[in-house]
Amino acid sequence: MSDERLHCTYLIESPIDVEKAAELLASEQSIGSFVQVPGETDDVLRRHGARVEAVDRVEDGALPSLATSLPGLARDVRTTRAVARVSFPVENFAPNLASLFAILLGNLFELQELTGIRLEDVELPASFSDRFPGPAFGVAGTRSLTDIPTGPIIGTIVKPKLGLPPEQIAALVETLGDAGIDFIKDDECLTDPPSAPLAARVAAVSRALDRVADRTGRKPMFAFNVSGESDDMRRSHDLVAAAGGTCIMVSLNACGPSAIGELRRHSTLPLHGHRAGWGMLTRHPSLGISFTAYQKLWRHAGVDHLHVGGLQSKFFEEDASVAASARACLAPLGRHAAVMPVFSSGQWGGQAPETFRQVGSDDLLYLAGGGILGHPLGAAGGVRALREAWEAAKLGIALDDHAATHPALAASIRTFGQIRTRRGTGNG
Amino acid sequence: MSDERLHCTYLIESPIDVEKAAELLASEQSIGSFVQVPGETDDVLRRHGARVEAVDRVEDGALPSLATSLPGLARDVRTTRAVARVSFPVENFAPNLASLFAILLGNLFELQELTGIRLEDVELPASFSDRFPGPAFGVAGTRSLTDIPTGPIIGTIVKPKLGLPPEQIAALVETLGDAGIDFIKDDECLTDPPSAPLAARVAAVSRALDRVADRTGRKPMFAFNVSGESDDMRRSHDLVAAAGGTCIMVSLNACGPSAIGELRRHSTLPLHGHRAGWGMLTRHPSLGISFTAYQKLWRHAGVDHLHVGGLQSKFFEEDASVAASARACLAPLGRHAAVMPVFSSGQWGGQAPETFRQVGSDDLLYLAGGGILGHPLGAAGGVRALREAWEAAKLGIALDDHAATHPALAASIRTFGQIRTRRGTGNG
Repeated sequence: MSDERLHCTYLIESPIDVEKAAELLASEQSIGSFVQVPGETDDVLRRHGARVEAVDRVEDGALPSLATSLPGLARDVRTTRAVARVSFPVENFAPNLASLFAILLGNLFELQELTGIRLEDVELPASFSDRFPGPAFGVAGTRSLTDIPTGPIIGTIVKPKLGLPPEQIAALVETLGDAGIDFIKDDECLTDPPSAPLAARVAAVSRALDRVADRTGRKPMFAFNVSGESDDMRRSHDLVAAAGGTCIMVSLNACGPSAIGELRRHSTLPLHGHRAGWGMLTRHPSLGISFTAYQKLWRHAGVDHLHVGGLQSKFFEEDASVAASARACLAPLGRHAAVMPVFSSGQWGGQAPETFRQVGSDDLLYLAGGGILGHPLGAAGGVRALREAWEAAKLGIALDDHAATHPALAASIRTFGQIRTRRGTGNG
Repeated sequence: MSDERLHCTYLIESPIDVEKAAELLASEQSIGSFVQVPGETDDVLRRHGARVEAVDRVEDGALPSLATSLPGLARDVRTTRAVARVSFPVENFAPNLASLFAILLGNLFELQELTGIRLEDVELPASFSDRFPGPAFGVAGTRSLTDIPTGPIIGTIVKPKLGLPPEQIAALVETLGDAGIDFIKDDECLTDPPSAPLAARVAAVSRALDRVADRTGRKPMFAFNVSGESDDMRRSHDLVAAAGGTCIMVSLNACGPSAIGELRRHSTLPLHGHRAGWGMLTRHPSLGISFTAYQKLWRHAGVDHLHVGGLQSKFFEEDASVAASARACLAPLGRHAAVMPVFSSGQWGGQAPETFRQVGSDDLLYLAGGGILGHPLGAAGGVRALREAWEAAKLGIALDDHAATHPALAASIRTFGQIRTRRGTGNG
């Protein structure tokens, strides 16, 4: 039996004493019921009880972030916010993500004594962390498979998101491959619809990639979106691998921990982890889970690439937060490999200098959808412009200066530089 | 090709024109990029574009519920809240829950133009709904397996949540079975830890259940928590089935759509669906998903029992909302069976009259953990008290009056009636 413990950092907010609220959380997620029951012995409590290690008050007097039906509260009740460090005995867990989720991200969100509850960080003891498979490829494996030893891996997304039949997707992939792209992925909205079945896409796209490889000597990595039910995902993986593919994509939240954990054990290819639905889990600052904790959990499960949003994107997140997410993906995690942060959403190259400055690394996948396919010089111009933007970023040259001698980048700046999005035009 | 569409109702909130915000949502979740791309033809738009059917304003002038990095907003910006009905072509989906989640609950939560975004309801066209397995058992199948044709199914949870070795759990199960319980489940925190491996629990508990059946002629339904990775869940199911078990439990959010969908196709037993983590998805009124939508999605995937919380529980939710969730589980859903709402959390019988009054049905699982094991007359007294409480509820007799001639109920009222929880004592 191991005495080791997982250490979690929660942001909690409560209208009652925060130490007591933290104790309730620890009890709910380990051995407690609402009354003491016969088997709840001191030995059980000692071996299996979660423990509040520290409660540090952050703020007093805030209004409740979340409603509660806790009886007896005054209408104008105020709360205390605190950082609670809670440890859980390793003994309580199975070494899989579903077990971690059920306890660390379980009923605690419903406790009426908490008007704010968010998992900020999690630390697994080494012996337990080691029992998770972790990424099979990560940064180094992805660089090796793509044969791109340094610099950002420039990628794109099949667009439009939906509606192209497999042969048209394959034609687009061939165009993008000839344009010199490093990486292409399906959109997360494209799963296995009748109008573009995954098996037909794998067949058509794989042939297109082979033709590109024959012509150019380089085969882009293509992340097929295999998201579906577990058996289907395994079969889809096998199809992709048999066709010479080098990556599969999964929507982590849409598929869930059990299927992704198993797919990792089955897969011979990198797992490209999309986080569609992520906003639901993180967007309120007093609820849900931080990216710091989220990436640690999914890295343990074995995801190799993880989406982090993008600077100056179409999404809600501040740039500094996006950059911090990318740095988290690249930070050490026990024996597990660093994973590729994936930048996506409204990216066109203009964000490259700031991205490089804030992340401090170009170990990343930089994806532009409209930024490549909407480029006035075509896809080749779009890809070239992205490489030029990253060149400028790494050389520390202002984009506009670099554009003076780089027409593709200049065209990008003219086309995309003024519109962060096309939303201002009402064009959706 | 089908022209049918899924219809979703979203609550949206935006600092920009809400019609435009709804269009952005529809575009993001179907065919849009931030610039128009070559393949985005009128035909693709018509066949695959999501469509805003209606936007009904609800409230003007509210402060933003969620932060956003949308440029150009005034510090004191106000928002408009609206109900947006958005339809999605069936053509865009595969008939599985992961595909629904990726689109209906995807990137939309991150859109910077939305400061509130919540899926309130979803309607699947019949032909598409029919392609989902739905519950194999539901209310009727569960009544048949438990041999309880009418009335609430009285159940309990193995407590303490964690820490009992398999043989001790089995002894407890035997006590509870002899006490006349209808249903027992593992706690959601108990997955497959080294201190109480699932296989050992299945073996020990199944023997205990058989002994109970030999003695009493009735075998309680036991929901083994098989939550884990996909393959393991299938194997665990097979173990349970081979041992004569009649139910398996899954933590829906902790396992995820892909694994649950597949387990449903594999399983010969009812799926008892726990919703640990649910608070994260629903607790903020401007974020996430309503239970109305949530239960429809999981019923399509094939869950047979679904947790709804409890009246006067230890959780945040108002009683009326809990009762509405239970009624939703019992409402028709195309060709799919009604599912058993599961009441749990701080239940001891005192909530029975109000639960019956508000739900309008006793097609339900009513679970008491501490309320049974903490009963002063022992487990048998606890079970008896629960049955007496439900008798009173159905007869329309006040609990206190019924208790005058029913000592077990009287003991429950004395023990649990004054403390909604033991939290007031600081005892956790």
